[in-house]
Amino acid sequence: MREEDGIKKICEEVIERIRPDEREKNKVHAVIDFIIAKINKKASEMGIEAHAISVGSTARNTWVSGEADIDIFIMFPAGISEKDLKEKGLALAKSISDRYEERYASHPYIHAYFYDAEGREHEADLVPCFAVKDASELKSAVDRTPFHNEYIVRRIPGLEEEVLLLKQFLKSAGIYGSEQRRKGFSGYLCELLILRYSSFVELLRNASNWKYGEKIDIEGRGKYKGEGKDPLIVIDPVDPNRNVAAAVSLDSFCKLIDAARDFLACPDASFFFPARKKEMSEAEFVKLVKERGTEFVMVLFEAPEVVEDILFPQLRKAEASVSNLIERNEFRIYRSDVSVEGSKAFLIFELLVWNLPPVKKHIGPPVTSKYHSEQFKRKYASQSLLIENGRYVVEVKRKYTDVVGLLKNELRSCSLGKDVSASIDRGYEVLRTEEISFFDGLGSFFRDYFDFCFSTVRLECS
Amino acid sequence: MREEDGIKKICEEVIERIRPDEREKNKVHAVIDFIIAKINKKASEMGIEAHAISVGSTARNTWVSGEADIDIFIMFPAGISEKDLKEKGLALAKSISDRYEERYASHPYIHAYFYDAEGREHEADLVPCFAVKDASELKSAVDRTPFHNEYIVRRIPGLEEEVLLLKQFLKSAGIYGSEQRRKGFSGYLCELLILRYSSFVELLRNASNWKYGEKIDIEGRGKYKGEGKDPLIVIDPVDPNRNVAAAVSLDSFCKLIDAARDFLACPDASFFFPARKKEMSEAEFVKLVKERGTEFVMVLFEAPEVVEDILFPQLRKAEASVSNLIERNEFRIYRSDVSVEGSKAFLIFELLVWNLPPVKKHIGPPVTSKYHSEQFKRKYASQSLLIENGRYVVEVKRKYTDVVGLLKNELRSCSLGKDVSASIDRGYEVLRTEEISFFDGLGSFFRDYFDFCFSTVRLECS
Repeated sequence: MREEDGIKKICEEVIERIRPDEREKNKVHAVIDFIIAKINKKASEMGIEAHAISVGSTARNTWVSGEADIDIFIMFPAGISEKDLKEKGLALAKSISDRYEERYASHPYIHAYFYDAEGREHEADLVPCFAVKDASELKSAVDRTPFHNEYIVRRIPGLEEEVLLLKQFLKSAGIYGSEQRRKGFSGYLCELLILRYSSFVELLRNASNWKYGEKIDIEGRGKYKGEGKDPLIVIDPVDPNRNVAAAVSLDSFCKLIDAARDFLACPDASFFFPARKKEMSEAEFVKLVKERGTEFVMVLFEAPEVVEDILFPQLRKAEASVSNLIERNEFRIYRSDVSVEGSKAFLIFELLVWNLPPVKKHIGPPVTSKYHSEQFKRKYASQSLLIENGRYVVEVKRKYTDVVGLLKNELRSCSLGKDVSASIDRGYEVLRTEEISFFDGLGSFFRDYFDFCFSTVRLECS
Repeated sequence: MREEDGIKKICEEVIERIRPDEREKNKVHAVIDFIIAKINKKASEMGIEAHAISVGSTARNTWVSGEADIDIFIMFPAGISEKDLKEKGLALAKSISDRYEERYASHPYIHAYFYDAEGREHEADLVPCFAVKDASELKSAVDRTPFHNEYIVRRIPGLEEEVLLLKQFLKSAGIYGSEQRRKGFSGYLCELLILRYSSFVELLRNASNWKYGEKIDIEGRGKYKGEGKDPLIVIDPVDPNRNVAAAVSLDSFCKLIDAARDFLACPDASFFFPARKKEMSEAEFVKLVKERGTEFVMVLFEAPEVVEDILFPQLRKAEASVSNLIERNEFRIYRSDVSVEGSKAFLIFELLVWNLPPVKKHIGPPVTSKYHSEQFKRKYASQSLLIENGRYVVEVKRKYTDVVGLLKNELRSCSLGKDVSASIDRGYEVLRTEEISFFDGLGSFFRDYFDFCFSTVRLECS
């Protein structure tokens, strides 16, 4: 019981720090009400049949203090065309904003800025959508959101603090957010997990025993077909064909399990508020790599101007394709990663083997395959042949004895993704350890890279 | 027709050089008769019920000029005990020899020396065996030989020269002899192949189209069960359960196919009499390795005092086991070999990667495996963990960053074979390229190693 008391106390302390106070809540709600009223009024003036609703964490009181993201959906009749929705929706959103940016995810929307009476700036995403009758009749990807919202709004009251704990815990572990850069747990997923297990601690207790393919089906009517593919399956209560946790990568799934076990074993507030890490300096980097004895090779280029959710899958595809090129040429990768920091995008490879001797075996056909043997021997007529394991083997000069030369010459043969490829066509650098000069963000990237994700120091309490 | 004429002419030239002349034949037959008479006389004097017969190539006129090996079998009644056979057989053999060495293959025998009237030395192997009624009733491994002899003696007359061509051709290709060092074609196998195809050239024409698992069954009653295991299956006409070609390795099999195609494409006497290769010097070796950019590592020890047929399988086993150790430690082997030269035995490894950085990933259990995860995290409590592909990964210090250190410390953990292991227990050296000092035989070993086995220059005639 003492342990449970300890956990309870820590959670209470954390809640105190992350729960929005009444002033913050009132402020957020006031902004939301102000924007909704403005949209509805304008729609009526413009003769547009549409109304605004508040969705997301600010609609459900599940935002972490200081991190309110206001999401307003502008609901249009399901009958209008996509073109109309886009034109009228965006025009309406723009017309009521003091300032705005047009953005695009799976769907265009407006990121709007408002100024209140005291001149303070407020932001909100204004998203046009179709008010479909049922979540199974989606006309656009965002039409599901109002259904999610309604589902959570009805059930979450009383559990908001548990959601806050979970969000903060995941954020600290680096796995909050379903965006492609992170592949973690979305806010909606957090809410569903809390609904399923009733409390943060109860969720952790369960998560610490999760197996690959863990399935959660709150409404008990899941028809999801993708079993085996995803580490975590959480059936969407408003669309039983959909896995809400589809974006959760295997490693994010495992990181939650790992953090859950560690926290339950040695509860501590530091799980929610990790120490801020100092950026790594260039000198520190060079010294560390020297100790490790490895070689870093960075492929550096201008970040293409697309959103991260488009860019990161391309970077990962490029990472896989370039890794394959490197290993096919018999060099050996220790670890690799990709990132975007400011205007720069890069692939980075830490190598165990980056130089190879000039000799290389070229394995030919089986000797018993007469036709191919004759072709092979004709091709290598001037060279000595070896017969090894029943095949001809000829010794050839290795084309690339250094991984940098390989990447400088063969990078374009890799499948890099459309936007990454276009950017690389405009120019790129291949830099080895001592040539990497630190730009903004690289110091903290390397800090994370070398600090690994979890410190077992936590376990030592037991 | 011109091509066939060319081949015929070359074969005739070769035959002239390798066929024993009448003088040599008479001499050999005289020695055989002399020894047989001596054994039979002595047996009768000693009251031993035994008689001698001539077997092998000298009994069949299929020996290459200058290379007559006289084999005399002393036939004992099948009814006597093994102990009696050994005692009486060896005593009888010793008693008629001017000088002898006791040897042991699968069976003890006497290597005898005789001096003729002119004081010239002659040698012969004197092998006691059981005169069993049928080849299926063997009491010892050598009892089959008299049956082989009888089978060939009856059928080979008229084809002796074809056998000589084949033996010389195989010798030149380095694949004549079924001993473990070579794993090639035995004399008896050569004779069977000639019986099957009637001529040397016809055999080559067929061999150039052989596939893995080629089966030759002269008497058409093979019951051999090992199909799939051996590249070449030649059913023993005197024992249909036996594959006469069981000792032929895949690479020896392929070398015959390859040489057959080359000879038929560009017939030349050089296929029978390859140029003598000059021994490689130590300086030449070091220079060549520098160009190749590889590193050689030699495990050198005293050759154990066992026959090569016992030693070579052990050396190859040691080679495989040490290769596995090297690759398990993430170094990379380019080629490896073993040999015995004089009193020295060695394993040699040519490496592509012989140094590695101090860092090493140690892959732990899947995170979802709770019990093992807890064990793992406790073990590595002081270290940072990474989660990669659903598993814990910890970075450890690589125990061996250099392959020489690895071999110096861990060689004894390899499975090396009884006699090799005992010799290594008495002492061994692990030498890298520049530390290898050339002893007798090493220069020609390395000449062969680097010259590869076949030169495609031959193909260029076409």
